[in-house]
Amino acid sequence: MILLTRKAEFSSAHYYWIDSWSQEENERVFGKCANRNGHGHNYTLEVTVSGEVDPVSGFVVDLKELKEILEREVVSVYDHRHLNLEVPEFKVMIPTTENIAVAIWRRLEGKIPQAKLYRVRVYEMADLFADYYGEIDG
Amino acid sequence: MILLTRKAEFSSAHYYWIDSWSQEENERVFGKCANRNGHGHNYTLEVTVSGEVDPVSGFVVDLKELKEILEREVVSVYDHRHLNLEVPEFKVMIPTTENIAVAIWRRLEGKIPQAKLYRVRVYEMADLFADYYGEIDG
Amino acid sequence: MILLTRKAEFSSAHYYWIDSWSQEENERVFGKCANRNGHGHNYTLEVTVSGEVDPVSGFVVDLKELKEILEREVVSVYDHRHLNLEVPEFKVMIPTTENIAVAIWRRLEGKIPQAKLYRVRVYEMADLFADYYGEIDG
Amino acid sequence: MILLTRKAEFSSAHYYWIDSWSQEENERVFGKCANRNGHGHNYTLEVTVSGEVDPVSGFVVDLKELKEILEREVVSVYDHRHLNLEVPEFKVMIPTTENIAVAIWRRLEGKIPQAKLYRVRVYEMADLFADYYGEIDG
Amino acid sequence: MILLTRKAEFSSAHYYWIDSWSQEENERVFGKCANRNGHGHNYTLEVTVSGEVDPVSGFVVDLKELKEILEREVVSVYDHRHLNLEVPEFKVMIPTTENIAVAIWRRLEGKIPQAKLYRVRVYEMADLFADYYGEIDG
Amino acid sequence: MILLTRKAEFSSAHYYWIDSWSQEENERVFGKCANRNGHGHNYTLEVTVSGEVDPVSGFVVDLKELKEILEREVVSVYDHRHLNLEVPEFKVMIPTTENIAVAIWRRLEGKIPQAKLYRVRVYEMADLFADYYGEIDG
Repeated sequence: MILLTRKAEFSSAHYYWIDSWSQEENERVFGKCANRNGHGHNYTLEVTVSGEVDPVSGFVVDLKELKEILEREVVSVYDHRHLNLEVPEFKVMIPTTENIAVAIWRRLEGKIPQAKLYRVRVYEMADLFADYYGEIDG
Repeated sequence: MILLTRKAEFSSAHYYWIDSWSQEENERVFGKCANRNGHGHNYTLEVTVSGEVDPVSGFVVDLKELKEILEREVVSVYDHRHLNLEVPEFKVMIPTTENIAVAIWRRLEGKIPQAKLYRVRVYEMADLFADYYGEIDG
Repeated sequence: MILLTRKAEFSSAHYYWIDSWSQEENERVFGKCANRNGHGHNYTLEVTVSGEVDPVSGFVVDLKELKEILEREVVSVYDHRHLNLEVPEFKVMIPTTENIAVAIWRRLEGKIPQAKLYRVRVYEMADLFADYYGEIDG
Repeated sequence: MILLTRKAEFSSAHYYWIDSWSQEENERVFGKCANRNGHGHNYTLEVTVSGEVDPVSGFVVDLKELKEILEREVVSVYDHRHLNLEVPEFKVMIPTTENIAVAIWRRLEGKIPQAKLYRVRVYEMADLFADYYGEIDG
Repeated sequence: MILLTRKAEFSSAHYYWIDSWSQEENERVFGKCANRNGHGHNYTLEVTVSGEVDPVSGFVVDLKELKEILEREVVSVYDHRHLNLEVPEFKVMIPTTENIAVAIWRRLEGKIPQAKLYRVRVYEMADLFADYYGEIDG
Repeated sequence: MILLTRKAEFSSAHYYWIDSWSQEENERVFGKCANRNGHGHNYTLEVTVSGEVDPVSGFVVDLKELKEILEREVVSVYDHRHLNLEVPEFKVMIPTTENIAVAIWRRLEGKIPQAKLYRVRVYEMADLFADYYGEIDG
């Protein structure tokens, strides 16, 4: 078994806000992120798949196809978008780095032929990232 | 003479839009950046100052003071803000990388004791940056 | 379960030296690192915690609090210090990258509310790093 | 137990081509990589070993020795070489990132005194890498 | 005046060899690069243009157009190619980092509307790069 | 004319201290850097030379020779050393980033055959660097 990881990037706006909380409560918990005009990041996504190396082609996964899947399922939906306002899953959960990793896992699960989705890593900035390995195991 | 460069970062939302243009014209020129919900970036700022090295302290500029100036004049105003909606200069000019570099120059000019502002470099992403050297010379 | 990782940096001096060994033995094993005037590095620390994402806030851990813990427990003690001369644990063990990772684990264990310390990674330089997962499992 | 990782680099040429396939089939599967004049990359290798920290020296592994092993077993064989034409294992398997990781594992296994080979990671470019943990477990 | 820089990447094979020299002379001057099977690199290209910021659009140059020009004039010709064997200019000059920078300048000069080509920077690896400013001035 | 830049690294200890000042004055000006036990950094050096590209070899400068010069004149003297205690020029000037750049210029000037020393850049950390172009021009 081998793991293969491919990176992609998207630039999005977001904010952290819970409607049922007061402005003070939102600012206490979320700090500057509670600004509802939004701010933004260059997110880096690392998607890792696991599988056996094909003995003929030497590939775990077709790299062009993997790139197209990431583009179609994630980048085209998130890039140059306001996550809270334009991406359905973030109307019901806050687009924290953790939740973005979970959401991307759900978008990709079952979509990659040949290989198994192993890990989704999302960097919000160079000094902060979240890893998600799916429901069972971390 | 020596040049000293200090980096800082800010994460902001922005969009590109000209009110007097039609939606089609905005999208033709600005592409995905014309989405008025906004998107965002982790901007990296490099500020370069020039001066003589102080023969006693070995400094061109007091680094703590320089850091405080960048924080006060730029980062506290731009970071976790929507540039179009919350930063005055971008109500009258579009927050392109070029214009952000010019705007930061204007915010910093004359504010750094001892040394001379030499260059402002702004990275929107790792693969795109603008350099501004002030009005006269590039 | 999800993993969240936060980076921090500290710049410290150190050397490698065992008192009960001769100068020759120290130099044979530790090479240039045996120079007792010391040398130094910009260390990068990556601290990973694991936990469940809070369904309301979207956080595994309060990021501001995590940053303060790293600052208080590690950075304020190690940064701009000579590890051998000023940090208690390195009076009894050599500040190799491996030992620094173990020492930081011990400083952080049990200090992070909500989440579980999962991994401590320490980079001495870009081409050398150590990972520690605690006593039981690696 | 602790993990220690050391990086090394090599710059090599390669191409992807299966003799028993037609030109069209090779180009369909391998795209631009099927160009038999070859192209090339700056590969980055990360070798991770696991072991106990020596209570005296503070090392899992002798770093100078590890560096020499990587140089002798991998870098001197791959660097500034055409992988398909000059490296024996790639006469029988295609030098994909996955296969390079497996091949380096086989070159290093059993060669590192004191510590156990834990993982081989190979970056072909910054946005693509493969991880291999040996035959049993990934 | 402002400078705008855009990065692009290409992965190519090359070797250093002068036909009129003996094998010994080639190896003495070019070292491992004289291996005629070729080796390769991930090259990074930074193209800088200078111009006035358009007071309406905020752009020095149309970024989409600049990207297409780099793709058409350079990346599509160099990427996944053997520079010596497949790129015309390197049949008459050796593809050193210096010569690649000059060759890219010649490919781009006069092709960028609105703005002036200011500098071409080529990284062969992270620790080696060449800058070319055109014929007159450096 | 073309510019060629080569990077090198060294890891050193240093502190900032002026004997004729009181402890309070040193701490006021130099902050944590005034700790006389020392701290340290991974310095990155970028040396830029200018010259004409040799029409036969395609080189501005012999890269192997340039690497040896940097190693002999700078890295072997600074690396794994305490700059204040072991490097002669820093007994009479404080090893600030600015002064290190000037000192390296003086060590390299006139030592590089064929090409002209153009710029010395020294990074103390990723977010702070100094550039020196020699006595006359910056």
